Amino acid sequence: MHAPFSAPAAELAEVTAALLASLRARGPLVHCITNGVVQGFTANALLALGAAPAMVDITGEAGLFAAAADGLLVNLGTPAPEQRDAMREAVAGANAAGTPWVLDPVAIGALPIRTALANELVRERPTAVRGNASEVLALAGLGTGGRGTDASEAAAAALPAAAALSAHHGAVVAISGPEDLVHAAGRTVRVLGGDALLTRVTGGGCALGAVTAAFLAVRGDEQPAAAVAAAHAVYGLAASAAAAGAKGPGSFAVRLLDELSLLTPERVRAEAVFAEADA
Amino acid sequence: MHAPFSAPAAELAEVTAALLASLRARGPLVHCITNGVVQGFTANALLALGAAPAMVDITGEAGLFAAAADGLLVNLGTPAPEQRDAMREAVAGANAAGTPWVLDPVAIGALPIRTALANELVRERPTAVRGNASEVLALAGLGTGGRGTDASEAAAAALPAAAALSAHHGAVVAISGPEDLVHAAGRTVRVLGGDALLTRVTGGGCALGAVTAAFLAVRGDEQPAAAVAAAHAVYGLAASAAAAGAKGPGSFAVRLLDELSLLTPERVRAEAVFAEADA
Amino acid sequence: MHAPFSAPAAELAEVTAALLASLRARGPLVHCITNGVVQGFTANALLALGAAPAMVDITGEAGLFAAAADGLLVNLGTPAPEQRDAMREAVAGANAAGTPWVLDPVAIGALPIRTALANELVRERPTAVRGNASEVLALAGLGTGGRGTDASEAAAAALPAAAALSAHHGAVVAISGPEDLVHAAGRTVRVLGGDALLTRVTGGGCALGAVTAAFLAVRGDEQPAAAVAAAHAVYGLAASAAAAGAKGPGSFAVRLLDELSLLTPERVRAEAVFAEADA
Repeated sequence: MHAPFSAPAAELAEVTAALLASLRARGPLVHCITNGVVQGFTANALLALGAAPAMVDITGEAGLFAAAADGLLVNLGTPAPEQRDAMREAVAGANAAGTPWVLDPVAIGALPIRTALANELVRERPTAVRGNASEVLALAGLGTGGRGTDASEAAAAALPAAAALSAHHGAVVAISGPEDLVHAAGRTVRVLGGDALLTRVTGGGCALGAVTAAFLAVRGDEQPAAAVAAAHAVYGLAASAAAAGAKGPGSFAVRLLDELSLLTPERVRAEAVFAEADA
Repeated sequence: MHAPFSAPAAELAEVTAALLASLRARGPLVHCITNGVVQGFTANALLALGAAPAMVDITGEAGLFAAAADGLLVNLGTPAPEQRDAMREAVAGANAAGTPWVLDPVAIGALPIRTALANELVRERPTAVRGNASEVLALAGLGTGGRGTDASEAAAAALPAAAALSAHHGAVVAISGPEDLVHAAGRTVRVLGGDALLTRVTGGGCALGAVTAAFLAVRGDEQPAAAVAAAHAVYGLAASAAAAGAKGPGSFAVRLLDELSLLTPERVRAEAVFAEADA
Repeated sequence: MHAPFSAPAAELAEVTAALLASLRARGPLVHCITNGVVQGFTANALLALGAAPAMVDITGEAGLFAAAADGLLVNLGTPAPEQRDAMREAVAGANAAGTPWVLDPVAIGALPIRTALANELVRERPTAVRGNASEVLALAGLGTGGRGTDASEAAAAALPAAAALSAHHGAVVAISGPEDLVHAAGRTVRVLGGDALLTRVTGGGCALGAVTAAFLAVRGDEQPAAAVAAAHAVYGLAASAAAAGAKGPGSFAVRLLDELSLLTPERVRAEAVFAEADA
């Protein structure tokens, strides 16, 4: 089992700033297979941040593309049959080529098709899993899921589930909530920041999954867990800045894209806040 | 046949304010099977208003989800084969569980697949039908449809079609236009408000179908027709407020989402205007 | 082979102004079969400009609709199997009815499904092809494509490919880049304007393909090449105006829609700049 984080919480702001600078310099190609509701917003979030998105979600192309991409997101929000097969192909391609990949088990639990697919895909050892507490609990077999993308459980309640997923499948597990938690191999880091308006914009969480894949793509010598925490911190800082001055969820979403493009490594170094948490 | 409205036009503003307060308090889960063009905007409109959207459009899940949801929208804008089967499943699930549902027969008339599907689904007795005049005429077999989502007919011209649909299938029928008309069982109410910029934003009408499902979900003791009229009034008030100060359709769409979140029951009570109409 | 342009570069601003006026007066119906990432933005760009979009992408309807529409866009961004067959049907319907159509060979080259489809469709003689340099090179068999929608080649490097495509298939070929090039039958026109922020918004290029179809739909006695150049000039002017004052890609996209609706034929006449280029 890999070491969970290469840095203590106090140093993660510095790591995050460096990874953001690297992302901007390299413009990683992030392959997204994601739901039809948020494809546009997800692509725009990646573009704003400085990554290059591509949504290749058909069989015969998804495997090739995942092998060539710098990172992959697999999001189960609207898993039509063709897309389900493309996900399997992409995961195989990513694993064969060493492309880091993120599994977002949207709304699993009570819905049988996506729950079975999530259980199948998590066994393929995603680099990271990102979801709300209900989804993480359901993926670990410890809950029945929430309603849709609603986070009806507090993030901390899903920590045992995150620990189980990490232990069984080797994944970093990020639990989104009012405060995000990132867990890997026995250690949990709290990522402060973000804004409740993220829950009033569709794709607010789904785009974070893609941003997580972008940070994993440029992590270099950093451990995956540090890259996942960095993604959450950057996204949260942009969200906090966007919320200041937003009149509602419409202007917040526009400002979030602007802020993702404006955020600098210097501001990240000064403003990102991480804390140790009990696992 | 149910009584069309539980309140005279003069009382509908009060009813609408109460339903908006109820929607905000309860956050109904609205299941949407809708076209790929407007999925994002539709979800954002529901989130802005205070509802919880979920786009579950695959077979094996759509029926289960419709039974558990508080309301359902079936929109025929881009009805791929898998989605068509998911719609049938969802309608069966909604009817079995008593979930209110809205049929939006987008662009039916000359296009054969969706026209046949709309004719099939309307016989399953949707709680409400929402469309422009061309679509309502085509659904009643009284016209050949417009071109795309264009409202090439005045709303009033479709009132006989609305009356026929209401009589045969029990549905409340809402006709969108410069002035919206809501018809049920022999009575028609005019809903004033709205703005022509709604026709310059994709999903301007489609999102209203989802909002209608959200109001039906929280109608409590009110008749469905009152909830449908309330949805149109709230959406129209938000659109009017959004248009004031918008520079064009881009900023209008952003402001519409903001205004949907900002609109209060108090403003609805003071500003919503309904009028009786000849049926 | 048709004459490439009906007007010298110095007169194209006048032609463009007249075509924009015609587009606003006629509101052409533009049939779009395009990728799921950009469907909403594409429809909104057309609506803002004054055209009427309709995304009919299922078999059994696409052929009929293309024959009735004023213009057609076929964009290969996310070509699921059903959509691929709908594209074939639509192209046949468009060709039978004389509907002008645009092929956008998104991300072809290394990805086999879409590359084969683009090769098949270009033989059906699209009125215009629009892509970045990598895509135009790949369509002519002279390159292996870029990564996703990235324009990794300078536009001018693709001019021989554009000339070959024009000679073999009769299409006007537009190459998007920092400066757009429009080639037809041996003559190339440079279209100045635009803004780099277009590369930071998903659909920035894809929507231009739809706008191109809209201008082809209203070209009247003008040659297709003039209409293609006009579309690029109008889109570029709106983008330049949108970039002035934008804080980032989020506000740029909103402003682009506003500016597409605000742009007048008078401003086009005064501000559009074309130049001859060596072919």
